[in-house]
Amino acid sequence: MTQVNAYAAQSATTPLTPFNFSRRDVGAHDVQIEILYCGVCHSDIHQVRNEWGNSIFPMVPGHEIVGRITKVGAHVKKFKEGDLAGVGCFVDSCRTCPACLAGDEQYCEVGMVATYNGYEKDGKTPTYGGYSTQIVVDENYTLKVSEKLSIEGVAPLLCAGITTYSPLRHVGVGKGHKVAVLGLGGLGHMAVKFASSFGAEVTMLSGSKSKEADAKKLGADHFVLTSDKNAMKDRANYFDFILNTVSAPHDYNAYLNLLGTNGTMIVVGAPPAPAEIPAFNLIMKRRSIIGSLIGGIKETQEMLNYCADHNITSDVEVINIDYINNAYERMLKNDVKYRFVIDIASLKN
Amino acid sequence: MTQVNAYAAQSATTPLTPFNFSRRDVGAHDVQIEILYCGVCHSDIHQVRNEWGNSIFPMVPGHEIVGRITKVGAHVKKFKEGDLAGVGCFVDSCRTCPACLAGDEQYCEVGMVATYNGYEKDGKTPTYGGYSTQIVVDENYTLKVSEKLSIEGVAPLLCAGITTYSPLRHVGVGKGHKVAVLGLGGLGHMAVKFASSFGAEVTMLSGSKSKEADAKKLGADHFVLTSDKNAMKDRANYFDFILNTVSAPHDYNAYLNLLGTNGTMIVVGAPPAPAEIPAFNLIMKRRSIIGSLIGGIKETQEMLNYCADHNITSDVEVINIDYINNAYERMLKNDVKYRFVIDIASLKN
Repeated sequence: MTQVNAYAAQSATTPLTPFNFSRRDVGAHDVQIEILYCGVCHSDIHQVRNEWGNSIFPMVPGHEIVGRITKVGAHVKKFKEGDLAGVGCFVDSCRTCPACLAGDEQYCEVGMVATYNGYEKDGKTPTYGGYSTQIVVDENYTLKVSEKLSIEGVAPLLCAGITTYSPLRHVGVGKGHKVAVLGLGGLGHMAVKFASSFGAEVTMLSGSKSKEADAKKLGADHFVLTSDKNAMKDRANYFDFILNTVSAPHDYNAYLNLLGTNGTMIVVGAPPAPAEIPAFNLIMKRRSIIGSLIGGIKETQEMLNYCADHNITSDVEVINIDYINNAYERMLKNDVKYRFVIDIASLKN
Repeated sequence: MTQVNAYAAQSATTPLTPFNFSRRDVGAHDVQIEILYCGVCHSDIHQVRNEWGNSIFPMVPGHEIVGRITKVGAHVKKFKEGDLAGVGCFVDSCRTCPACLAGDEQYCEVGMVATYNGYEKDGKTPTYGGYSTQIVVDENYTLKVSEKLSIEGVAPLLCAGITTYSPLRHVGVGKGHKVAVLGLGGLGHMAVKFASSFGAEVTMLSGSKSKEADAKKLGADHFVLTSDKNAMKDRANYFDFILNTVSAPHDYNAYLNLLGTNGTMIVVGAPPAPAEIPAFNLIMKRRSIIGSLIGGIKETQEMLNYCADHNITSDVEVINIDYINNAYERMLKNDVKYRFVIDIASLKN
């Protein structure tokens, strides 16, 4: 066992504070990773504040982890000491259900082992995430990270990146497609980069005019202010795909109307209340709505490789760990471009 | 112009009564059809009673038309006098938009010309449907009907048939798939026949135990009583597809829960109020919901040919036209197995 420094929430109503715990020894199939950077995902806030009702305390959040391998188990094949590595939203799964066998471990029928706020497969050892100095993970649930990119910009790819990459690939977005991205935050800014990189015509749909310049800098071809009724009307029946990243309550129908025949809205944000969807709005143009959850290990690796090949990273603001509670407050005001990433060096002393 | 006998609604609140009007002369690309049978679709009731708020009176309903060609225009190529022919939900469309060019005339961007309760492309000549002795239709919007099948059982294929055939084909239902059909009515009974014929394992989901025997006779392998909580729990995450034919208000989520990873709910019934859908229920298993509207001419012809080859027709109760108002009342109580079809001979005297 190794003692590690971390930041944890002790309850749903208290700020994150310093915390120490032990990581397991490196097993035959494990790698030990010295964490260098960890992204701050909006779901960290939801879970720290028990907004999904399933929180386990103390909680060490963080599932956008990049670091360097410091030890490998006897049977490890993919990694060697000194390699860069990444860990995303889960660190294990049943490995035998159809979803796991298909490489879609995120849909594991037994339930994936979440990187934090979960239990190991023994059902009792809590998992602790990346707001910590070190983590031990089975090599099969660990990703290879290229030395080519700035690793602080790679960290958010492990959640925000794969969450947008996976559904865009699943529905086959490419050249000739008209893709709208709804919401310019951590997910939205990655969606714009990917959709644009895949060759699609990309339109940012946003409620704030102030985001237009940034959206275009990120790769958007067009910008539509969602409060501009004429602009919205102009884009009725226009898009092949809308990637909806918004998790605040909003009217799905206003956006479904922008989809042409056979158009698909991809939902990756989960608003607190159910969306109201009139069947007519789907039926009359064979529109569809599909949900998507992160991505499997194989696809996450494919995404990281794609990003290395195409020089794609997340736009980040690097912070020290003692800023984390402020960062949460700023995230709640969408005051970040576009992802906070913790420099874990700040946890080491 | 030819005088024809018909039944029409003169207003949203009066019963259907005898009516006479003129059909156009046969144009160069038209066929004139002596109507033999016309199916009675639930949407006839919605429109007769102006429940969709877009009714044009007087209204001659009917869009499940089978008859025999009595005259062909000078340039008609597909048909000759004496051929059996069918007409479905639309009799024209713009012919130039991407949807029309793709053979998806039902999604015509200008708007298809509905067989009744619509206007011809001149924007002013009302269209009158199949509760009448004769119709004149462009050959490109007329279907060939095989002599092999009982034509009264073919009539409902033009709407109930294609409405279920098209989405099952669109999503690729076949051998190895687990398909549930929700609701055993005009649409549901055709969905069971098609899904079973395509090689899928078919489960009928219904609120009435009394439908079990019939569902199995139609081809269902299994029956789940939707009020049986244990049976529903047993089928959680089970199906690849659910074809939802219900247009009464109902909770989509109870059924979405029955879909496995990558499962799709196909919606062909339009409940009066929007469905409430929590995004989580889609996201956590990459589930999707897709709407579908009838089918294009090419696919409708393919469906009719498929039915002739596989001896598939609708189960019908043939009525005389003077029974139509009673038939509507019985349909509102789901008291028909599974489609009323009007014997148009009863209109001739």
